[in-house]
Amino acid sequence: MIILIDERLKKQIEFLVETDKMKNIYRQTYVLNEPRKENDAEHSWHLALLAIILSEHSDLKIDVLKVMKMVVIHDIVEIYAGDTYCYDKEGYKDKAEREEKSARRVFSVLPDDQYHELYNLWREFEDGISNEAKFAAVLDRVQPLTLNYRNNGQSWKEHNVEKSQVEARNCATKNVSEDIYEYINDIINDANVKGWLK
Amino acid sequence: MIILIDERLKKQIEFLVETDKMKNIYRQTYVLNEPRKENDAEHSWHLALLAIILSEHSDLKIDVLKVMKMVVIHDIVEIYAGDTYCYDKEGYKDKAEREEKSARRVFSVLPDDQYHELYNLWREFEDGISNEAKFAAVLDRVQPLTLNYRNNGQSWKEHNVEKSQVEARNCATKNVSEDIYEYINDIINDANVKGWLK
Repeated sequence: MIILIDERLKKQIEFLVETDKMKNIYRQTYVLNEPRKENDAEHSWHLALLAIILSEHSDLKIDVLKVMKMVVIHDIVEIYAGDTYCYDKEGYKDKAEREEKSARRVFSVLPDDQYHELYNLWREFEDGISNEAKFAAVLDRVQPLTLNYRNNGQSWKEHNVEKSQVEARNCATKNVSEDIYEYINDIINDANVKGWLK
Repeated sequence: MIILIDERLKKQIEFLVETDKMKNIYRQTYVLNEPRKENDAEHSWHLALLAIILSEHSDLKIDVLKVMKMVVIHDIVEIYAGDTYCYDKEGYKDKAEREEKSARRVFSVLPDDQYHELYNLWREFEDGISNEAKFAAVLDRVQPLTLNYRNNGQSWKEHNVEKSQVEARNCATKNVSEDIYEYINDIINDANVKGWLK
């Protein structure tokens, strides 16, 4: 083991190692070019990329750096809490509790000040009140919806998802980005016409 | 296909779809908790996370947002150019040419202004002259080195990597972050003692 490095960097490196587990948390969405599900690390990277190219579509004033940090860390709690499919009513019952516990555990690997910084950033994302949290949530919807649409609705079909469920999930987009809301709406309608939604 | 959305958003969504291929570009580094190699999307996410927690160790003044954007997009050119292992002398011969072509192709999916923004950001990373490019390169070294060290030097052993090669690659770290340089140095020495490096 490494001995010489200072305590602070040591904790940060342990966090690097611990968060490698994000690469083994699989979501319900499929990647486009391999027959397998997407993991949390890939998903979070894709959202960070979208934060760069889609921020101009936010109708709310946002700090792009904050949005990027948020999407990069938003799913780290799933390392211990697991991924909860957005249309899984049962899983949602104790999701908040599981994730709260997990957040305290995983972020506490970091030095104290960074533990608080990342925990608060995650909490802000979950609360969904700030402009950045709202826009990050839009990115978190548009990415899987697009992949799922391009995969002929594979995960919707597997889970018998209804049009009204997808619409309900998209509802909050309207007040954050008209452009993206309309795009998602088009996707939903087209997926419905194609019979991919119940 | 979607018809109603504006041309700009349409191009941005196509970029989202095209860059999904990052999830199928495998590197030489292994993830820690599954017997498989890491892909470019996972690697880039990990660097973005490190940009958040390790930026304080930069001895050069850096704009963290710029570093984050850089690491998120730095490997996108590999979608067509493929991953070139950092100790692959043969592959390095035409790496620059392959990646330049690929950059022009992949970023041109975006609206013109964003094509230029992302191309220039990638170019800046590759040139390695700005403070942000230098620090992003440090992150790009410390992440695989750490994973490889925690995996008992698996990819070093597979490729018969010599201690001097890893040292040469770490050399530039010294002028960017003393802390991280020392940490990597410790890793290299320990890996050498353990017989993981030639």
